[in-house]
Amino acid sequence: MRAVEVPEAGAEFELVERELPDPGPEAVRVAVDACGICHSDAFVKEGSYPGVSYPRVPGHEVAGRVDAVGDRVEGWSEGDRVGAGWHGGHCFECEPCRRGDFQGCENAGITGLTFDGGYAEYATIPAAALAAIPESLDAVDAAPLLCAGITTFNALRNTGAGPGDLVAVQGIGGLGHLGVQYAHRMGFETVAVSRSSDKRDLAKELGADHFLDASETDPAERLQELGGARVVLGTAPSAPAIEAVAGGLGRDGELVAVGVPGREVSVDVQGLVGNRASVGGWGSGHARDSQDTMEFSALRDVTPEVETYDLADAGEAYDRMMANEARFRAVLEP
Amino acid sequence: MRAVEVPEAGAEFELVERELPDPGPEAVRVAVDACGICHSDAFVKEGSYPGVSYPRVPGHEVAGRVDAVGDRVEGWSEGDRVGAGWHGGHCFECEPCRRGDFQGCENAGITGLTFDGGYAEYATIPAAALAAIPESLDAVDAAPLLCAGITTFNALRNTGAGPGDLVAVQGIGGLGHLGVQYAHRMGFETVAVSRSSDKRDLAKELGADHFLDASETDPAERLQELGGARVVLGTAPSAPAIEAVAGGLGRDGELVAVGVPGREVSVDVQGLVGNRASVGGWGSGHARDSQDTMEFSALRDVTPEVETYDLADAGEAYDRMMANEARFRAVLEP
Amino acid sequence: MRAVEVPEAGAEFELVERELPDPGPEAVRVAVDACGICHSDAFVKEGSYPGVSYPRVPGHEVAGRVDAVGDRVEGWSEGDRVGAGWHGGHCFECEPCRRGDFQGCENAGITGLTFDGGYAEYATIPAAALAAIPESLDAVDAAPLLCAGITTFNALRNTGAGPGDLVAVQGIGGLGHLGVQYAHRMGFETVAVSRSSDKRDLAKELGADHFLDASETDPAERLQELGGARVVLGTAPSAPAIEAVAGGLGRDGELVAVGVPGREVSVDVQGLVGNRASVGGWGSGHARDSQDTMEFSALRDVTPEVETYDLADAGEAYDRMMANEARFRAVLEP
Amino acid sequence: MRAVEVPEAGAEFELVERELPDPGPEAVRVAVDACGICHSDAFVKEGSYPGVSYPRVPGHEVAGRVDAVGDRVEGWSEGDRVGAGWHGGHCFECEPCRRGDFQGCENAGITGLTFDGGYAEYATIPAAALAAIPESLDAVDAAPLLCAGITTFNALRNTGAGPGDLVAVQGIGGLGHLGVQYAHRMGFETVAVSRSSDKRDLAKELGADHFLDASETDPAERLQELGGARVVLGTAPSAPAIEAVAGGLGRDGELVAVGVPGREVSVDVQGLVGNRASVGGWGSGHARDSQDTMEFSALRDVTPEVETYDLADAGEAYDRMMANEARFRAVLEP
Ligand SMILES: [Zn+2]
Ligand SMILES: [Zn+2]
Ligand SMILES: [Zn+2]
Ligand SMILES: [Zn+2]
Ligand SMILES: [Zn+2]
Ligand SMILES: [Zn+2]
Ligand SMILES: [Zn+2]
Ligand SMILES: [Zn+2]
Repeated sequence: MRAVEVPEAGAEFELVERELPDPGPEAVRVAVDACGICHSDAFVKEGSYPGVSYPRVPGHEVAGRVDAVGDRVEGWSEGDRVGAGWHGGHCFECEPCRRGDFQGCENAGITGLTFDGGYAEYATIPAAALAAIPESLDAVDAAPLLCAGITTFNALRNTGAGPGDLVAVQGIGGLGHLGVQYAHRMGFETVAVSRSSDKRDLAKELGADHFLDASETDPAERLQELGGARVVLGTAPSAPAIEAVAGGLGRDGELVAVGVPGREVSVDVQGLVGNRASVGGWGSGHARDSQDTMEFSALRDVTPEVETYDLADAGEAYDRMMANEARFRAVLEP
Repeated sequence: MRAVEVPEAGAEFELVERELPDPGPEAVRVAVDACGICHSDAFVKEGSYPGVSYPRVPGHEVAGRVDAVGDRVEGWSEGDRVGAGWHGGHCFECEPCRRGDFQGCENAGITGLTFDGGYAEYATIPAAALAAIPESLDAVDAAPLLCAGITTFNALRNTGAGPGDLVAVQGIGGLGHLGVQYAHRMGFETVAVSRSSDKRDLAKELGADHFLDASETDPAERLQELGGARVVLGTAPSAPAIEAVAGGLGRDGELVAVGVPGREVSVDVQGLVGNRASVGGWGSGHARDSQDTMEFSALRDVTPEVETYDLADAGEAYDRMMANEARFRAVLEP
Repeated sequence: MRAVEVPEAGAEFELVERELPDPGPEAVRVAVDACGICHSDAFVKEGSYPGVSYPRVPGHEVAGRVDAVGDRVEGWSEGDRVGAGWHGGHCFECEPCRRGDFQGCENAGITGLTFDGGYAEYATIPAAALAAIPESLDAVDAAPLLCAGITTFNALRNTGAGPGDLVAVQGIGGLGHLGVQYAHRMGFETVAVSRSSDKRDLAKELGADHFLDASETDPAERLQELGGARVVLGTAPSAPAIEAVAGGLGRDGELVAVGVPGREVSVDVQGLVGNRASVGGWGSGHARDSQDTMEFSALRDVTPEVETYDLADAGEAYDRMMANEARFRAVLEP
Repeated sequence: MRAVEVPEAGAEFELVERELPDPGPEAVRVAVDACGICHSDAFVKEGSYPGVSYPRVPGHEVAGRVDAVGDRVEGWSEGDRVGAGWHGGHCFECEPCRRGDFQGCENAGITGLTFDGGYAEYATIPAAALAAIPESLDAVDAAPLLCAGITTFNALRNTGAGPGDLVAVQGIGGLGHLGVQYAHRMGFETVAVSRSSDKRDLAKELGADHFLDASETDPAERLQELGGARVVLGTAPSAPAIEAVAGGLGRDGELVAVGVPGREVSVDVQGLVGNRASVGGWGSGHARDSQDTMEFSALRDVTPEVETYDLADAGEAYDRMMANEARFRAVLEP
């Protein structure tokens, strides 16, 4: 099979020919139909995550079909349409797992990082990492939902925000353009916050009730004028961007960062005390959360905007993504 | 009547003789039996809060008896034992008030700051700021519950922590020595965190299941060894103290600061994302919250440790509090 | 002014001429533009609610404009577009009020029942009962939102259901046709349950993802096939209807009745224990809840279907509503 | 090994000699130190639960030591002190399991019902059903916590009640005498409700703040006088008992039945609507919930009152339990 691997930390992608992998007893082999490219693939490419062994095939937005089923796997059959995201399975036995908090598994695998991922024609995925893809969802559309989608959907639905509450999505890129769609369809009064004024029309089309151009106005001030945000979803992995918008929280406001900035974030505790507000984080979710994300997306027509690429062009696609030029998610079609 | 006033921002306290105040139509006059001295009295003493007019009688931990009742006041009668805290009444008409969020009232009074407080024989208190004192509670014990008590009780009960969860109280002083008692009596596995090793025995007596000496060990590391804190209640108004303990949060951990530090706090967002954790704040509560605090304290024998002083010694008492020498709350008995 | 009054319990409506009422110090006079007719108006018409004095002008879905303002009222001015629902103001001083739970006020007024309501050209409404009507909302559309709307909106948003969860609305009438719209726009997988197969198309148009014809299939069984309902909103005031659908609850399922049936409801506790499920009730909300309802409806285009009538035809309109012939809400335009 | 089995549905217990069982790859063999007798053992004894095969060893309050470990089991070693309750393991693969809701597993085993339980010297238990017993807890005290304990602890901690809220425990028997202890230690204002006036003193010792003799007063009325219950924990499997106390719910009140009555329960929906209240159920919990229960019990000195019996006297012990004569839990010591 064809696969794109990172030969060693910091090296360029290489398109190679590999043996078809064997799924082992508790995994399945997936014939990959599409795999999204995520900013976190840089962990593998640059070797900035502890413990990655090389060569490694990246890719944690994997959408495909079950091609072979491990001996002890129940519930999945050849031909099932399945996806896998960052959460690459869990151990069932650590403390978080015993509580059903698979997202917190202390021995969790990471797709395309602790094992080979979706930049390939086939990938073997632990059964615990599989999410069923709804029939009406194309693989190319499903792929980005498995990381960019679940991260924003799951973060938003686990806040305290309710219908009609003011919810801001900061950053309108791979994550944010999905976040705006989810926020709208969950019934929030949705605010898109971006430094690119040319995204105004698109944001409105995606479902934003308001657009704040953070390059021209103070987004915190503007959010306060709108009544103060119940939730700010921080999708940009940028400390200054988070700091610029934190002051826009209203009563019981929650800033939920899903992008990890390169440095610590400075927080004004007095403002938090005054509003019973908080600054926190959220990281994707487990396999059933991915499935929920796709089911909701199919139910309410949430669709990513994608550019598609052949495996051979993975490097070009990755570079566009890193340069914030992809509109809005680059997806490989092996 | 005798009263202790701050003649102007930055000046010393003065014991003066004043006319008995008239409550007006929507307030009551309270004969003060006890008034706690709080760190926030420094706002009045030093003029560091916007908009205080002088001379001003401080004191927002007021416990006494209703002495006269305004014309339009219902529900309170002469002789009723009542208290008042930082929340000095609300307007019923602003947005938060219309939602029943009196704590967030945009026109809220502040006892002993926007109007004269409890460093006096009598104080006039808006009816909306009154809390009934349970019969079994002495005024001297009730007073500190009206700010130090409600702040810790209300913050803790509004977290997501449940019985058996690991809850750390950082700082064992005026607030923290009550926080430990509340945490224990709410069923939390209670951790006292302090830089003073000599508070170990006391912390255990108050109900701490664990004592972490933050001057000798890394409290964040130790909390992780205990499983990670579901909640850290930050009572010390110190940014380094908050930063030192934030890393001790476990799954869904909430750091709730009730003391406002002098500078912004640096937060490691990656850690928050990994644990779905957050850093937030909480500020006391409204009059019924104060009453809940006192009722719970009476029900479960939560008692502040106090030093009592005559009005004439307010300056000495205040100085001991500011120097962290009061053990643990200085209370005036007018 | 013209008004329609019930002269005594059980009597016919009478169109009468009355003096323009004076609002008093804590109320406003509202020029009524529209007033919905609700099933609960029968309490006044038939005298089946304790303590109604006659003659009484019914009507608790009042939409209009402020015409005169009481002396002590703040926050409302002549010309403001306002509405009032069942919640006819609160006392601010009882236990629930002190907790901000105005909906539970022990001294609450009821519009059109403890004081004259909206079947008239003018009505005096306590300031605490007023909700602002969004600019984009017509009075005729706003009126039904003030009881049928708030009841379903507020019940749904206060359940534990989240985006993508299966939510059934039982009964597609005055309340239910709004409930389906809200459920869809809150992001629920929405099931309309009705005994009238001819409502299928309409239910789908309103936003139902599924339609269950309860006259042909067992709705509980069908809900279980769909995975089990997270929430069932029971809008029909019918014990058999509630009993028929309760078995459709899934894990953590909540049946929330907003219509009060004429007899007690039989509940299978074993089923509840097995699913951690519950059967409960919900009753409208306070003034700010009404405003939330209207704001959400304006934001997401929730519109009642109405038939409009002149004051003179109140009796006819009422009869159609009682016979379940109104489609779906009869509204008077005084 | 010695074991007590039910030879067939409806037959008497028989003490028999059996081969030492083999745990299989995903289970452990437990040397039983103590096993509580629960009312639900009657399902096995009388054959009133679908699908029990005979002979069957009952007992789902099993406390002991790991004696042999299956090949694929991780996290448990010989000698570990462990317990198992009603929840006899889960499949990890059904819909509830994929969401981490092991309690709702569609393929869950039931200890002492779908496989042999703790009325024996040894029992084989699926690893997924194991809970670690805290060091300070005796086996005899641990056993009743594994069904009577977890049921009440887990039900109470999953309600919306907070510190100081009024919580009633209806029925002071095997479950209720633990429920009262938990309610007190969670900080609730605790009401014991019983038809046996001779339990007043004991209830107070266990931590009840109030005792309502339901044979002399109307418990619903008395609860309303105390302010209305936030939670009523219904432990008696009796429809009339549940109906008698449901009217005692206050604002947002939750009646949580953990005992399943023999017939349906009649519910006054109007009362529920008026208070936003509900009637629901709760059924024990999974293995980690059991461990939480024991850890909390060890931390806060919750101790069951037990009568101990030899295996040979299982019949006598069972009869006393069924006759409500056990005080309060009969425990076998194999
Ligand atoms: Zn990703
Ligand atoms: Zn794990
Ligand atoms: Zn206000
Ligand atoms: Zn204070
Ligand atoms: Zn009231
Ligand atoms: Zn109505
Ligand atoms: Zn049992
Ligand atoms: Zn299962």
